[in-house]
Amino acid sequence: MKISSLLEKVRQQKPLIHHITNWVTIYDCANIVKVLGASPVMAHAPEEAAEMTGIADALVLNIGTLTNELIKVMIIAAMRANKKNIPIVLDVCGAGATKFRDEKIVELLDHAKINIIKGNASEIARVAGIDVCTKGVDSTEVYADLILVAQNLAVQRECVVVVTGEIDIIVSKDKCFKVKNGNKMMSQVVGTGCMAASVIGTFAAVGDDLAEAACAGLCAYEIAAEQAAALASGPGTFKERLFDCLCCLDSATVDAAQRVE
Amino acid sequence: MKISSLLEKVRQQKPLIHHITNWVTIYDCANIVKVLGASPVMAHAPEEAAEMTGIADALVLNIGTLTNELIKVMIIAAMRANKKNIPIVLDVCGAGATKFRDEKIVELLDHAKINIIKGNASEIARVAGIDVCTKGVDSTEVYADLILVAQNLAVQRECVVVVTGEIDIIVSKDKCFKVKNGNKMMSQVVGTGCMAASVIGTFAAVGDDLAEAACAGLCAYEIAAEQAAALASGPGTFKERLFDCLCCLDSATVDAAQRVE
Amino acid sequence: MKISSLLEKVRQQKPLIHHITNWVTIYDCANIVKVLGASPVMAHAPEEAAEMTGIADALVLNIGTLTNELIKVMIIAAMRANKKNIPIVLDVCGAGATKFRDEKIVELLDHAKINIIKGNASEIARVAGIDVCTKGVDSTEVYADLILVAQNLAVQRECVVVVTGEIDIIVSKDKCFKVKNGNKMMSQVVGTGCMAASVIGTFAAVGDDLAEAACAGLCAYEIAAEQAAALASGPGTFKERLFDCLCCLDSATVDAAQRVE
Repeated sequence: MKISSLLEKVRQQKPLIHHITNWVTIYDCANIVKVLGASPVMAHAPEEAAEMTGIADALVLNIGTLTNELIKVMIIAAMRANKKNIPIVLDVCGAGATKFRDEKIVELLDHAKINIIKGNASEIARVAGIDVCTKGVDSTEVYADLILVAQNLAVQRECVVVVTGEIDIIVSKDKCFKVKNGNKMMSQVVGTGCMAASVIGTFAAVGDDLAEAACAGLCAYEIAAEQAAALASGPGTFKERLFDCLCCLDSATVDAAQRVE
Repeated sequence: MKISSLLEKVRQQKPLIHHITNWVTIYDCANIVKVLGASPVMAHAPEEAAEMTGIADALVLNIGTLTNELIKVMIIAAMRANKKNIPIVLDVCGAGATKFRDEKIVELLDHAKINIIKGNASEIARVAGIDVCTKGVDSTEVYADLILVAQNLAVQRECVVVVTGEIDIIVSKDKCFKVKNGNKMMSQVVGTGCMAASVIGTFAAVGDDLAEAACAGLCAYEIAAEQAAALASGPGTFKERLFDCLCCLDSATVDAAQRVE
Repeated sequence: MKISSLLEKVRQQKPLIHHITNWVTIYDCANIVKVLGASPVMAHAPEEAAEMTGIADALVLNIGTLTNELIKVMIIAAMRANKKNIPIVLDVCGAGATKFRDEKIVELLDHAKINIIKGNASEIARVAGIDVCTKGVDSTEVYADLILVAQNLAVQRECVVVVTGEIDIIVSKDKCFKVKNGNKMMSQVVGTGCMAASVIGTFAAVGDDLAEAACAGLCAYEIAAEQAAALASGPGTFKERLFDCLCCLDSATVDAAQRVE
């Protein structure tokens, strides 16, 4: 896969990525889109969520700090995105932690077609209907065959499923990629998971195949993370360097460093 | 203009700057006021917004993630600020992106006297009634004569109008300044526009002339940005350095580096 | 006191720290818990706040951007924390700034048993019933005998009281510690106070004695701040380094650098 060609397309087309996301990492989500050379926007008022989606090229939803009101707005925006035929990424942040979260995820999935579902192993397992115990928003070990779980969910919901972890898994009905890039420092700082969903949304906005776009986005992001980790003295400086490195990432480096299978 | 004398006044008087702002850059807005040596406060409950404004020296409003409820609170706070005669800065973030935003800006302007309206070229053009198409919260090209547009708005609303861009324009009924400081890295990271409004509010809190205060604030902020860009390896490290540089900015440097016309 | 043994316990047990906090520093609160090796979670929907508290090891409340709705959710979560017998830390951020804040603090204290009340000198004095004037969320001078004030509050509310400042004071009914670590750069950047409450909550989750846990947490955090200040060129880089240094803090250093009395 030619990761760099999609990265260049992002930088040329500068897609507008609308987010309805959580209050913890909302800045990070906006900024990671910005440093990619694209445009983020965040608008959660019910009165403008559909109109803002109407000028956007992709929609990113994240239930990290969901409320009933926010889910309603997500559905409004998602229905508009479906009508406009732009991709929707849903980060099922904290799935399995409470019944409320699990119910609201189903509500979202039942009201609009979500194109890409993204989560860590325990979150995706939960959304796929497996009885796992989630510890807040951090991943816990899952013993089931993750690829099978993800593929079943992908078929059931007719979507791409992204499972982030040491090795990321991206599956659709008929494709399966593994991304082996990345650095363990990503799991030592808040926001890297949420930003991954924003990056995926940005690449999905310019790509033809959503599984390939998700794979290319994750791969570019994680190569930047590898570079950032080499320059960092801990999770604080790592995150600032991650913004630097993704902004400066060049095509030759990406294609040489990619470890996609 | 003696930029440094207002900067020193900020550091001596340590004004309290109340914000009702967006959830994306709320931290940045608070922190930029803090590193200037002043005190930020953010309070959006309708029950306390007026009282908090009552102990503040300036009010900064930003509609980046507006809701109906938040606009109501902004009006409550703005009316109190008018009564107390402290300056109000309104960042018309995302003006033109949706009808809701445009309507709520008019509602704000009609219910309280806003002393300084701040936006990028397309936002200000939209508030001035020109039919421009805004791409989310990022600026798009405007072909009209920006200074004329800004001056008309300044006369119509009896306020100072600040148009940020490569060259910033500050106009009032009878004054016009251009600030040529700054660095293009400011447009590669989320938050620099919102922080500019907070800096303007902080300088307005201690200045006698609002156009001069807005000009001095922007100028000091953008000189710090020039210094930060020289120390940064990308947008992530740039933003941290911007806080460092604004905190450490000394008077002699400011007056030597200013490029105000 | 052996600070390092509690730090190691945090890293081994990785407690889950639930927050209902303000929108300004919500990221910082999550991240400081994460870099300690523990797990943060933030959930403010009334439908899930109790359930999320039910899987947490401590609850941190912060009224920085309180609303009526948020206080109701805090009470729901706090009652569950009491039932589950996990510690609750309340950061009385901005106490004294408005009547609304003061009333809501009393409402919280009357509806649930708060185990640790944390604030700066003027905030704690206000909660203790002393007539001080607070300037937004920053501390103002307090002339009364702080230790006496804090002890009275600790007895009245049967809790630990933490007063942050150049010298931090931690008192319970029968204990009193002073922490002399820290650096003045902590007061030049937004978020250090809120993060202190999150650190205290994280240590309280694994400690047997809450006064000792609060003291150990503050001490470790402020030793990291000393290290960060030595590496920083201003408040921006200081904060990133603080995350790095707390993440990398080793036991021998902590025990050698501690200045607890």
